[in-house]
Amino acid sequence: MTRSELEAQIQAKKSVLCVGLDTDIEKIPAHFKQLEDPIFEFNKAIIDATHQYAVAYKPNLAFYEAEGLKGWQSLEKTLQYLNQNYPELFTIADAKRGDIGNTSARYAKAFFEELNFDSITVAPYMGSDSVKPFLGYPGKWVILLALTSNPGGGDFQLKSLSEGNQLYQEVLGQSSQWASEEELMYVVGATKAEYLKEIRKWVPNHYLLVPGVGAQGGTVSEVMEHGKASSSAGLLINSSRGIIYASQAEDFADAAASEAAKLQAEMARFL
Amino acid sequence: MTRSELEAQIQAKKSVLCVGLDTDIEKIPAHFKQLEDPIFEFNKAIIDATHQYAVAYKPNLAFYEAEGLKGWQSLEKTLQYLNQNYPELFTIADAKRGDIGNTSARYAKAFFEELNFDSITVAPYMGSDSVKPFLGYPGKWVILLALTSNPGGGDFQLKSLSEGNQLYQEVLGQSSQWASEEELMYVVGATKAEYLKEIRKWVPNHYLLVPGVGAQGGTVSEVMEHGKASSSAGLLINSSRGIIYASQAEDFADAAASEAAKLQAEMARFL
Repeated sequence: MTRSELEAQIQAKKSVLCVGLDTDIEKIPAHFKQLEDPIFEFNKAIIDATHQYAVAYKPNLAFYEAEGLKGWQSLEKTLQYLNQNYPELFTIADAKRGDIGNTSARYAKAFFEELNFDSITVAPYMGSDSVKPFLGYPGKWVILLALTSNPGGGDFQLKSLSEGNQLYQEVLGQSSQWASEEELMYVVGATKAEYLKEIRKWVPNHYLLVPGVGAQGGTVSEVMEHGKASSSAGLLINSSRGIIYASQAEDFADAAASEAAKLQAEMARFL
Repeated sequence: MTRSELEAQIQAKKSVLCVGLDTDIEKIPAHFKQLEDPIFEFNKAIIDATHQYAVAYKPNLAFYEAEGLKGWQSLEKTLQYLNQNYPELFTIADAKRGDIGNTSARYAKAFFEELNFDSITVAPYMGSDSVKPFLGYPGKWVILLALTSNPGGGDFQLKSLSEGNQLYQEVLGQSSQWASEEELMYVVGATKAEYLKEIRKWVPNHYLLVPGVGAQGGTVSEVMEHGKASSSAGLLINSSRGIIYASQAEDFADAAASEAAKLQAEMARFL
């Protein structure tokens, strides 16, 4: 999906909502467990209930890999369902891959060709070869980890370099030379809303994927206010558990829709 | 596998060889392609031909994920084959995962429980929460990226921090506080043999997994000379393409065995 297609969908729906499909077989309503593929059926129900409020869906790969072969199958079916029924939605493989060139090229094949995701999250530690093999697929994106909101996020990312900047700023500075804002986004943790202004100095116009709204803390309005790009929305704000587990009873789909609608309404004020 | 079991195998075989199973369906001998599971059958032949010279096997996950569901199946079968036929061998999931706590916990389940690997490679960018969920599984290991030998490895890893050390040194320093040398190893690129002495100042006794011997350059004797731990071998030296594609003809297994034997003989001089 191109940047202008994504932006058009955002403006049409007045939403930058990304729904995180961190689907945990232990947490989905009990009646799914009798079905042949509980994880896929749950995802399908969540997607059907929330797609009008959301522009993107982000399966968290760990939750699928933890189920082995069956989990990989659920992931494939979820992607097929999204691509066939809602081709306008942006899809993110939250995989946080990061490897050397020939290995990264394999991951690009896995996620962009085999599974037909629009984008993949990538970790920067191994440098430019971790990113470049994912580029050059028309309409496909790398979403590079910059500043994350987890408790250990600061262990290395906030370290000051001898040149005066911090590691996450160095990541933004260097990587924004490797790829254009038509193919590179950044993961930026929402609980660091105070950092959003600083980040916009480094990458004024790249899209930012902001996890950590909801269960991980951080407010939508803070992010919308400080995180927007200079010439577009430039944001995707993710909520996972806050939406998909809004209720764990029979009414889970309605509850998910109502949480998604609430977030979308907050976003609309800024779009 | 515990540290003392690994060390005992190393001393018995006079080898620290790890065979990287970067199995690429395009590169394996043509006759495999008629079989139902070419990747597994090739791995099986390589393992049977080389196990007497090697102490560890390291499937590179990207090569399996690139084949989708079928690839995941080949990986499961490869692990089962190793665990059933050669339980003395140390197994490494070269996955380079790195995520927040609850997600990393899922990956631990996927690789340590579902697939029964002995260890997994992990990336440090997201800090301690990327590592800690993998700890506490008896006999299981985290292998943390420290200094990698790929061209972009220096983009961030070699950056000087304001405290005077370099980023990879900070990673070694902090992470060696999170886990003991009974459950944490490091990935250290062999083409940086000049760095091995420096690394041993930071982690005198942890095991190091050294890729980059063979196709990626770097010599075994340099690594053995400068990389050994203070009180044990403390090394696993990986070769992937140099062994598994030593020949792409019918004699591939003999060629792989002979390459593995050559490396083992070099290692034996130092053990």
